[in-house]
Amino acid sequence: MDYKFQTIGLLGKRGDPRAGETLVHLSAFLRRRQIRVLVDEDTARHMVGEHGIEAGTREDIGRHCDLAIVVGGDGTLLHAARSLVNWGVPILGVNQGRLGFLVDVSPAEMTQRLEEILRGRYQEEQRCLLNASIIRDGSVASQSDALNDVVVHKHDVARIIEMQTYLDGNFITTYRADGLIVSSPTGSTAYNLSCGGPILHPGLNCIVLGPICPHTLTNRPIVVDASSELEILVTGWHSDHTPVICDGQVVLSMEPGDRVVITAKERKLNLLQPAGHDYFEILRAKLNWGVHPK
Amino acid sequence: MDYKFQTIGLLGKRGDPRAGETLVHLSAFLRRRQIRVLVDEDTARHMVGEHGIEAGTREDIGRHCDLAIVVGGDGTLLHAARSLVNWGVPILGVNQGRLGFLVDVSPAEMTQRLEEILRGRYQEEQRCLLNASIIRDGSVASQSDALNDVVVHKHDVARIIEMQTYLDGNFITTYRADGLIVSSPTGSTAYNLSCGGPILHPGLNCIVLGPICPHTLTNRPIVVDASSELEILVTGWHSDHTPVICDGQVVLSMEPGDRVVITAKERKLNLLQPAGHDYFEILRAKLNWGVHPK
Amino acid sequence: MDYKFQTIGLLGKRGDPRAGETLVHLSAFLRRRQIRVLVDEDTARHMVGEHGIEAGTREDIGRHCDLAIVVGGDGTLLHAARSLVNWGVPILGVNQGRLGFLVDVSPAEMTQRLEEILRGRYQEEQRCLLNASIIRDGSVASQSDALNDVVVHKHDVARIIEMQTYLDGNFITTYRADGLIVSSPTGSTAYNLSCGGPILHPGLNCIVLGPICPHTLTNRPIVVDASSELEILVTGWHSDHTPVICDGQVVLSMEPGDRVVITAKERKLNLLQPAGHDYFEILRAKLNWGVHPK
Amino acid sequence: MDYKFQTIGLLGKRGDPRAGETLVHLSAFLRRRQIRVLVDEDTARHMVGEHGIEAGTREDIGRHCDLAIVVGGDGTLLHAARSLVNWGVPILGVNQGRLGFLVDVSPAEMTQRLEEILRGRYQEEQRCLLNASIIRDGSVASQSDALNDVVVHKHDVARIIEMQTYLDGNFITTYRADGLIVSSPTGSTAYNLSCGGPILHPGLNCIVLGPICPHTLTNRPIVVDASSELEILVTGWHSDHTPVICDGQVVLSMEPGDRVVITAKERKLNLLQPAGHDYFEILRAKLNWGVHPK
Repeated sequence: MDYKFQTIGLLGKRGDPRAGETLVHLSAFLRRRQIRVLVDEDTARHMVGEHGIEAGTREDIGRHCDLAIVVGGDGTLLHAARSLVNWGVPILGVNQGRLGFLVDVSPAEMTQRLEEILRGRYQEEQRCLLNASIIRDGSVASQSDALNDVVVHKHDVARIIEMQTYLDGNFITTYRADGLIVSSPTGSTAYNLSCGGPILHPGLNCIVLGPICPHTLTNRPIVVDASSELEILVTGWHSDHTPVICDGQVVLSMEPGDRVVITAKERKLNLLQPAGHDYFEILRAKLNWGVHPK
Repeated sequence: MDYKFQTIGLLGKRGDPRAGETLVHLSAFLRRRQIRVLVDEDTARHMVGEHGIEAGTREDIGRHCDLAIVVGGDGTLLHAARSLVNWGVPILGVNQGRLGFLVDVSPAEMTQRLEEILRGRYQEEQRCLLNASIIRDGSVASQSDALNDVVVHKHDVARIIEMQTYLDGNFITTYRADGLIVSSPTGSTAYNLSCGGPILHPGLNCIVLGPICPHTLTNRPIVVDASSELEILVTGWHSDHTPVICDGQVVLSMEPGDRVVITAKERKLNLLQPAGHDYFEILRAKLNWGVHPK
Repeated sequence: MDYKFQTIGLLGKRGDPRAGETLVHLSAFLRRRQIRVLVDEDTARHMVGEHGIEAGTREDIGRHCDLAIVVGGDGTLLHAARSLVNWGVPILGVNQGRLGFLVDVSPAEMTQRLEEILRGRYQEEQRCLLNASIIRDGSVASQSDALNDVVVHKHDVARIIEMQTYLDGNFITTYRADGLIVSSPTGSTAYNLSCGGPILHPGLNCIVLGPICPHTLTNRPIVVDASSELEILVTGWHSDHTPVICDGQVVLSMEPGDRVVITAKERKLNLLQPAGHDYFEILRAKLNWGVHPK
Repeated sequence: MDYKFQTIGLLGKRGDPRAGETLVHLSAFLRRRQIRVLVDEDTARHMVGEHGIEAGTREDIGRHCDLAIVVGGDGTLLHAARSLVNWGVPILGVNQGRLGFLVDVSPAEMTQRLEEILRGRYQEEQRCLLNASIIRDGSVASQSDALNDVVVHKHDVARIIEMQTYLDGNFITTYRADGLIVSSPTGSTAYNLSCGGPILHPGLNCIVLGPICPHTLTNRPIVVDASSELEILVTGWHSDHTPVICDGQVVLSMEPGDRVVITAKERKLNLLQPAGHDYFEILRAKLNWGVHPK
């Protein structure tokens, strides 16, 4: 049998043994089909009972795999996406029993879906990632990618912060708020939605800029082209140690005088989905919109 | 002197004499510069005191003018845009003393701005328009363009309506709401904003779909690609005489079994603005966001 | 056996035969216990197969019953509440299989709950009703009560309306909006919630005033004391035939120069609920908040 | 001349010299009228040039004054209100040139308004305060009053927190959110408004409970009776060091297992306002609602 993928990487949630069983099952399934399986070294520790596992770093997976399967929740996939995006390896998400926006294959249907995917029956979606760079004295002090969102947030919970914000050098406004979310279409159904932002269809080349609990009630979310450059300066008192949070997982820190520059990455994430995948079906399920009329 | 535009059309608000003085002033200014001025025939009736006016239909203006100047509010420009878009003539808006999102040249600065524009100092923005077509028994029963928005609204004020909604043939959901707004980026700061929708930067090739007072609270606005086709069916009781309203000005009517198909027009509106025009400055002024810090 | 109620009225949804079976079952259950049953004359027509039904008008039920059981949805109970409130008869709601905010006894548990209620095991809640009176030339042109809400709404779907609004004679603001909702605590989980209003705990003596899709984004809902008098004048163009809608069921009409005065009724609705009834449990179920942690 | 107040306390913003001039002017004005003036000891340090000032602690002001005048912004008045409420002394707010919700007398009109107030021409409003108590092992570990709001907020900016919430012992829901605001009517126009909460008329005996950026979109603000007891437990991971913030000024801290109990204080704040004070006029000015029509 000629399968579409020869070497497949497996990744679970860092430090979490719960996906172990699913991963063991998955590994055996793939190896029976003569597919080389490369397991993330952290994940491999939790795959008790599976012998002869080939473990490797994320870099190894990036270099050698033509597909990476991520088992866990949306958070696990966000982490994997950031660490693998620069290698261009496509990613498929398998959830742990609870539907996610990004991990919509369930363990129960996993092997059937995989069989189809291995035979080439799948969809590919190019998902836009963001990059946040803290600029200090003219050079990049720290930076991170984000698949969902970059959030500038107040550090002192009792204070709001002031954020001067520019789009391609044009002043937008000075937000006085708890923070500011810059979200990709992928992230639009995450924190952005809790803060009053709109849903962006995943195929859009747009980002949405939304203040968190803004003092000025008319500071509504703005959708802009993803090829724009956003620049944010935290001004006024309470501008030290302002955290910049990528995907709720990586925390950078701004000091007075710093600015954070947010752009879309040229490299997109190649997200694999089973044939017949339906974005709106997931929205309807996750947001309790009800079912399709007969 | 070699001016950029040789024939300029003038349009005011239909049936409204208030712009008369500004229009007379404008006409004299242009004719002194040997520019041919063609006045909308309805508007011409209100230009008391200006002799030798050449009046014409919208079609005449569309055919013969290389610029159309619209004097009035945003509503006047919406009307002019729909009637002129198919001729490709660029449009410049002059307000009547009150800043609009689309008419941001004031009468006070009008002649100075015009002098610059005539010499080629201006910006051009391509604005996306929508088309709404009511499909009945397989053919178009009625249709209209819209620069701002297409709104499907309940007819009976005491009832909500049910709207089955599809994006490129894929079922989104059945909205139970007072109505549904499909808005262009231009229209995003109008009715869409009142209904909880986001601001779309005017350059985007997107549209936003937002339910009006939806019964299901998680039915949040969705931003989709403008090249998509939206299809809406009104179902259930109270589905007769459902109005479909374009720009708050043109009212089409749906009957049970009809569907409305909304797409972006290929033809864009060519909106002229003075050099140095700043979209965010208008947002800040109209939405009381405060001024630029020094 | 000494039951708490001797004469019980039964009411279904006007013109709807679906509750017939439940009502027949209910009637038999009560009559077996020697309780006199008085059936709403419209409802009686749908109770096929139940012999010897004593039918009467709403007034008869109001005069003679010491409990009225309403079978249907929230809308059916709203109607019954308005028609019975002045007689002071307590009301118990039985739903038709789908949980309502007001009708939370299901047909399946109906007889068990009733047995308990007949023996005095129940809770009583006093629910506030509103009265809307259209004042024309100094006298009341028309009026209606409302258990949920009074809504002033635009008549022409393509226009917003202007509503000068006063609280106890003090000017609040002129709303420019699709309409204005004045909601009781009971109605706060209905249309008010779709329009961005808060939930008011049912025991509060408050009402909430919320504009529908207001032009001014900072026009947020205001909660005021229910003993206040609200007065609304529709001004400007498009002020003719403005409908004033009570509970989404009764439509009054305002003409230019009219004002609508909204006050809380002194008479409260006496809403009966099974012992152990939990308001927040209904909220959690209806709004998908999830369940109580173990 | 027989004045209504014999001893008046003066308070400015702690550590802020900017109100010095206004305070000196105020002190001289009062002393010319033989009124004893007692200045907050911190404030006195900034009143350069005023000789013979009698300074005292907040307790001295509470014990001896029959009116306290607070010069500054809303934040200054919040601080003064908490420190003086238990003494029952009425408070009048004078702003520093920028209208506040609580400090609506401007320096320019100050002496004229004061002259009237001294002669008894004023309004008194009773404003509800909250008390937050952290309960640890059955006793109060720390507590604070709040005039505006009590906020339970996530400590780790990259995480949401889970808050089990009870009203008079009845489970409401488990909020998964950035935090939870419990706001008095006075505080309803502050942080609560930024988080999507309603405006509560200041005279109401209600509080509003609103989640901050809740994960569940249907978790809307709930208005409850101020005589209720609210209890909040932070559960799950990230429940250590959870700050509880009173008026954005006092920060208490919760540890795992703690709960915070929030009740309305029996003692109300006696807020003095000039005769003719109009709550809605302040709302209209602060929220840009526009002016009263002629």
